[in-house]
Amino acid sequence: MKIYVIGIGPGNQEYMTPQARSAIEKSDVVVGYTLYVELVRELTEGKEVKSTAMKQEVDRCRMALESALEGKTVAFVCSGDAGVYGMAGVMAEVAEDHPEVEIEVVPGITAACSGAAVLGAPLIHDFAVISLSDLLTPWELIEKRLSLAAEADFVICLYNPKSKKRHDYIDKAAEIISRSRSWDTPCGYVKNIGRDEEKGVVCTLKELAGNDDIDMFTTVFIGNSSTKMINGKMVTPRGYRNIR
Amino acid sequence: MKIYVIGIGPGNQEYMTPQARSAIEKSDVVVGYTLYVELVRELTEGKEVKSTAMKQEVDRCRMALESALEGKTVAFVCSGDAGVYGMAGVMAEVAEDHPEVEIEVVPGITAACSGAAVLGAPLIHDFAVISLSDLLTPWELIEKRLSLAAEADFVICLYNPKSKKRHDYIDKAAEIISRSRSWDTPCGYVKNIGRDEEKGVVCTLKELAGNDDIDMFTTVFIGNSSTKMINGKMVTPRGYRNIR
Repeated sequence: MKIYVIGIGPGNQEYMTPQARSAIEKSDVVVGYTLYVELVRELTEGKEVKSTAMKQEVDRCRMALESALEGKTVAFVCSGDAGVYGMAGVMAEVAEDHPEVEIEVVPGITAACSGAAVLGAPLIHDFAVISLSDLLTPWELIEKRLSLAAEADFVICLYNPKSKKRHDYIDKAAEIISRSRSWDTPCGYVKNIGRDEEKGVVCTLKELAGNDDIDMFTTVFIGNSSTKMINGKMVTPRGYRNIR
Repeated sequence: MKIYVIGIGPGNQEYMTPQARSAIEKSDVVVGYTLYVELVRELTEGKEVKSTAMKQEVDRCRMALESALEGKTVAFVCSGDAGVYGMAGVMAEVAEDHPEVEIEVVPGITAACSGAAVLGAPLIHDFAVISLSDLLTPWELIEKRLSLAAEADFVICLYNPKSKKRHDYIDKAAEIISRSRSWDTPCGYVKNIGRDEEKGVVCTLKELAGNDDIDMFTTVFIGNSSTKMINGKMVTPRGYRNIR
């Protein structure tokens, strides 16, 4: 009666930890969004596989719980880290009435970390992670968080910056941040992290607004007041002295 | 002429990605703080090893740069993620005058993610990561970030919550956060993540203040206004409806 909620990292198995691999291997059933189950297919041979389309998060958790209650060990796979906008939370909520089911979260590399590595070193100092998706969060709260994070001079990492219905949210976010940060602030974004089509772009805050290249598979990074460009990379200094 | 700045994750090799392992294997020289080099010793056989004591971060970067300039491939190992309070930033700064040296950052599991997994799912929604170390950051800025992050209702993850010289900083942080959040807010902390002595504790904001168990090897998590305890785990809801 155990559910592993597993972060498999961004796409490529090069990012998946031995702990994640081992948890899948120990399981009888693999549950997840179709695309993520596909990414670990070589590990699912001989196992029962239950996958669902996008946006059926609660259903996936129920499927995982059902299998666990039948006495099976379940691997519930998520992209990135299962604990950052991942399924670890809703899984615990769905299983609340079944404390006999053990839930173990297996961490993975989240897009903040894998994306930062592509751009250089933007997250070296204090940072805030904000999702621009208002499917489950009121937009007013997202605006408030953007505004206060900018005022606090956090480096800011944005998940879900855009979708078909929310094509101008990144523009609004850039505008809010510009109230306490220069339009020339070094920024960057990474598309399709850990996949063949991975692409990292460095730019300014001004260039984030109205940017048509950013899509729902993009993670966006906004520097703090010290972030600078060094040899084409986005770097936030930690503050060491006597470097040169 | 290449330096891999590698996050090896928290202690145990179970958390180290195949990408990190492969980067070490491809290198001629391994550079790092003595303890971290020790953690990957089985991978360093036959390689040149250069390690230094703590607090010699800039020296370590210079050693890595020197070897790279001699034409060697260098693995510069860091705990957790090289890009979160890690060496990826200062390495880029030290090598600024040598654009011919390629620096590739290899991401790892940072303590925010590995610690969150131990406690349950605290980081499921927007969060801020703040270091309480004032060695390189003015305390006033740290206070400002704590205050604004609390006001924005971010889940807050604290790195470096304490040291011998800074034994009451976690108390001050709890007090600042309590100005916009209940003293009963679900919180937690994890010591020695990924090591044999790993220990996760859930508590309230009140219980963080004056807590003698928290030390410099601890990562602290402070819930937002929605965070709750479910079956002994710290869980921040994302906001899905119709869960039950």
